[in-house]
Amino acid sequence: MTYTAPAAEQRFVLDVIADVPGLAALPPYANATPDMVDAILAESGKLASNVFAPLNAVGDKAGARLADGVVTLPPGFADAYGLYVAGGWAGLGVAEAHGGQGLPFAVAVAVQEQLTSANMAFALCMMLSQGAIEALAAHASPELQDRYLARLVSGEWTGTMNLTEPSAGSDVGALKTRAVPHADGSYRIKGTKIYITWGEHDAADNIVHLVLARLPDAPAGTKGISLFLCPKILPDGARNDLICTGLEHKLGIHASPTCTMSFGDNDNCVGYLVGAEGAGMRAMFTMMNNARVQVGLQGVAIAEAATQHAVAFARQRVQSAKFGGSREAVRIIDHADVRRTLMTCRALTEATRALVYLNAAAVDRGHAGDAAATGLADLLTPISKAWATDVGVEVASLALQVFGGMGYVEETGAAQFLRDARIAPIYEGTNGIQALDLVGRKLGMDGGTHWQELFAQIGDTLHDLNANAELAGLAPWLDDALTATRAATLWLAAANNADDVAAGATPYLRMMGLTLGGWLLAKQALAAQKQRDAGIGDAAFLAAKITTARFFAEQLLPQVGALSAPVTRGAATLFAISEATLAA
Amino acid sequence: MTYTAPAAEQRFVLDVIADVPGLAALPPYANATPDMVDAILAESGKLASNVFAPLNAVGDKAGARLADGVVTLPPGFADAYGLYVAGGWAGLGVAEAHGGQGLPFAVAVAVQEQLTSANMAFALCMMLSQGAIEALAAHASPELQDRYLARLVSGEWTGTMNLTEPSAGSDVGALKTRAVPHADGSYRIKGTKIYITWGEHDAADNIVHLVLARLPDAPAGTKGISLFLCPKILPDGARNDLICTGLEHKLGIHASPTCTMSFGDNDNCVGYLVGAEGAGMRAMFTMMNNARVQVGLQGVAIAEAATQHAVAFARQRVQSAKFGGSREAVRIIDHADVRRTLMTCRALTEATRALVYLNAAAVDRGHAGDAAATGLADLLTPISKAWATDVGVEVASLALQVFGGMGYVEETGAAQFLRDARIAPIYEGTNGIQALDLVGRKLGMDGGTHWQELFAQIGDTLHDLNANAELAGLAPWLDDALTATRAATLWLAAANNADDVAAGATPYLRMMGLTLGGWLLAKQALAAQKQRDAGIGDAAFLAAKITTARFFAEQLLPQVGALSAPVTRGAATLFAISEATLAA
Repeated sequence: MTYTAPAAEQRFVLDVIADVPGLAALPPYANATPDMVDAILAESGKLASNVFAPLNAVGDKAGARLADGVVTLPPGFADAYGLYVAGGWAGLGVAEAHGGQGLPFAVAVAVQEQLTSANMAFALCMMLSQGAIEALAAHASPELQDRYLARLVSGEWTGTMNLTEPSAGSDVGALKTRAVPHADGSYRIKGTKIYITWGEHDAADNIVHLVLARLPDAPAGTKGISLFLCPKILPDGARNDLICTGLEHKLGIHASPTCTMSFGDNDNCVGYLVGAEGAGMRAMFTMMNNARVQVGLQGVAIAEAATQHAVAFARQRVQSAKFGGSREAVRIIDHADVRRTLMTCRALTEATRALVYLNAAAVDRGHAGDAAATGLADLLTPISKAWATDVGVEVASLALQVFGGMGYVEETGAAQFLRDARIAPIYEGTNGIQALDLVGRKLGMDGGTHWQELFAQIGDTLHDLNANAELAGLAPWLDDALTATRAATLWLAAANNADDVAAGATPYLRMMGLTLGGWLLAKQALAAQKQRDAGIGDAAFLAAKITTARFFAEQLLPQVGALSAPVTRGAATLFAISEATLAA
Repeated sequence: MTYTAPAAEQRFVLDVIADVPGLAALPPYANATPDMVDAILAESGKLASNVFAPLNAVGDKAGARLADGVVTLPPGFADAYGLYVAGGWAGLGVAEAHGGQGLPFAVAVAVQEQLTSANMAFALCMMLSQGAIEALAAHASPELQDRYLARLVSGEWTGTMNLTEPSAGSDVGALKTRAVPHADGSYRIKGTKIYITWGEHDAADNIVHLVLARLPDAPAGTKGISLFLCPKILPDGARNDLICTGLEHKLGIHASPTCTMSFGDNDNCVGYLVGAEGAGMRAMFTMMNNARVQVGLQGVAIAEAATQHAVAFARQRVQSAKFGGSREAVRIIDHADVRRTLMTCRALTEATRALVYLNAAAVDRGHAGDAAATGLADLLTPISKAWATDVGVEVASLALQVFGGMGYVEETGAAQFLRDARIAPIYEGTNGIQALDLVGRKLGMDGGTHWQELFAQIGDTLHDLNANAELAGLAPWLDDALTATRAATLWLAAANNADDVAAGATPYLRMMGLTLGGWLLAKQALAAQKQRDAGIGDAAFLAAKITTARFFAEQLLPQVGALSAPVTRGAATLFAISEATLAA
């Protein structure tokens, strides 16, 4: 595959939606000057295009292989990882106090988008390490930080998250892995974890496993869970008692080793407590929230890559005369139906990108002390994760369709995007879990001020659109979407039957995603118009921004209204058919 | 996988929607008595469950293999094919005059649905042979029929369709394969065909290839195309000069050999003309129309199988407490969000099944001399093909999601449904081509009488609903859908810019699919109510029919209105961004 980083688009969204210039005015992010951001995106774009992308099909075909507890990555991956480390990319978004470059999460996310577009299976490794860095930076003792954090920030070592067990998937609180205190202050860990991404591989000298486990006297459920650091290689250079016993045979992301990890087969797996006993879930959520934003980003990244791939094909493939036109065969990009597909891909990609970058910037503002921003980030996170990953699958499938029969043949590469994309709605909390998190926890937070504030901002944009001769046509579509979404929100807030709320969760999350997407594209159209009128920037790019916002408003925003009934019809019909009849 | 044929549901749809009792009153279909149909569905259900289903995962894993022009099927396939032949299944829907059992296409479709649910890759072989039988029955000389038709009807030999070439996919008229007349009245064929389904295999003694080619003096485009029969083995027992030179490495249907076929490498490939010179496309369309219905059926079949699979898992998998409930973990079928997913799967499966069976029965009525029924079948065919295959992919993906992480692991089998389903929107005319066929050809046929008649029938059902205390609640949803669809139809009929019509084609087809689906489920609800009140049939099944119709009306029909704008906004926005900017 070839991949070209959409640096102009990324920069525009970082400026207009994430307000990185505003972030750079805050003490922690002073490094994020416009020149620095441009230089970073240009360099990471090269890494993505020249190093990661050429390995994407290689990794899919060869996959990660396991023999005797040793995982061998596909050819080229270990060397590529070396280039990533040498470039200092692992510390990009890490605070300078921890040896990083102190750039905002929003900028790190833009870089990670590029790497993920180019090679999602590989970029997962980086994503997991980022999570481990975050958890250790926030919760580990200075001693543990000294020993492990610096090597993760440099990229020399990689990190993992070990939550899932065979009977504890979405229900993390059901996990059974045990941790027993040891005389030297460490613990001995025993248990089996499954679906451990990049749990074992041959590209780094050490792997820092963060493992959720229970102390012998711990209470049931999530309150009894503590977090432990189990290094693959112990400080004295000996191998810890943990091993990869299996790799999953998956639909996609073949180059990402999805490991079954066995801890303490010989009762000698050393673990170090991270944070307080019983505070494991809280520590895990620190990293999980940002990981959810990053998984949403995977949806954006695959959508971008698949769209680029399909546009390139549509520009060169000649097939059939135009509908109702002369008999001369044209390139398929000239067919209106193919254009519709490509515009849908583009609009969804840009809308989800804006949402994820906005979310990341809210995380940054929260870290800089803005409590309202943290509330916004918390509200947006399940929407970013679920809507953007659904979009990733949808766009990958639309893009595959552009190739016709060739799309179904693996060598073309379109099918890999679909296979890779399909994991993202599942892991890091299924999209159903995200929807329940949104309606059950996030809407009601702080008395609902966060969604109220968000809707007020959409109202401001509506005001700007209505006052704008060129863009006023977007307003009715966005207004209808906002009205329907607000009504659904109020219905959920007033509902007093938990099943009814749960029944509406998934369509409600989609309403929110679409409405926010339409809003963020409209904001970009307003900004593009301003830049154009001021003679700043590339005219074609700015005109396209306005067109894409219009397309999204007219063609996709109407879906919001169609989701009102699904949100508000309650659970009765869903449970009216007995399960025996459902199975018949 | 386990698969249980939904015989009660199939029988209900055959009775209520396809009106098989009415068909049995027509001379060609006198054999289709209720007892006979029940016996057939019970027997084919056993074949599907006991023979086809156990080979589904086997076939996916082993795939078809090619060496030196010989294709070896996965273990067990050749024997299973023998059982299919021994059961006389190949001739089920073939007229008695040609040695078949003379049952309606609608009944044959119900059988084919079962086989496809159990093993889509394998059932494709049967589907292709049916197409070859149809083409030869309609267009071949008595001599050719004598030599080839009987062995296809018995199932001893299988058949293929050879249309596509590297530069002639959707644009069949661009094909280059040559046919030169030979002194003995036969022809010599030379050319390469790609994507030939079941083009070579080891389960039958001979393969009857139907090949589109051009005579030396033929005009350009589709008018210059003729149809030829090229047997793998010639009447004298010698091998014909045709060979499989490659197999595609595909996303799914691995057990179905997708062949590159080389005809006449030694200038000695014997072909026999089927029908008149230059009439090849017409002959091909004979089989293609029914093949399109059968591909739509693949969407139904995969949706059914994937839904069964997900329901079975949801009934046994225990994970997490109910939202807002006590802390006790429950089976995931008790979670409202999972129920929503399963109900969506069920409603979409039943709606598309009804549409495809209705379509098949209209084909039958047309064959029996009802010209209006032929018009209806022609109108419905692109909707059946495209909407049902889109639904197949959507339901397979929803069903996969129910499994969480396990859905992404190949051993579970959920991923195979998605991979297999994904071809159906592509082959036999991409869904984009179907949409253009609908708006460009089918709507305007016979002055638009066919869609007018269809909408009038929906109006009749609305009348029945409104007069029915229990079911009147369905009417407003169906009424809104019909109103929007009618308005979109009139807009398309009045549009005088071909690009605008083409731009609206895909969302319009989806409007039609959803509206027809909601209508056909409402019709079933009315019939179920009648049976229930008369004390006929299984009460739980009939109650579920009413619930499913209500779910579809309230939850899915609102999408129709959201498609009005996409249909009617025209092409301008789609082409507003230059392709260079689109690619940037």
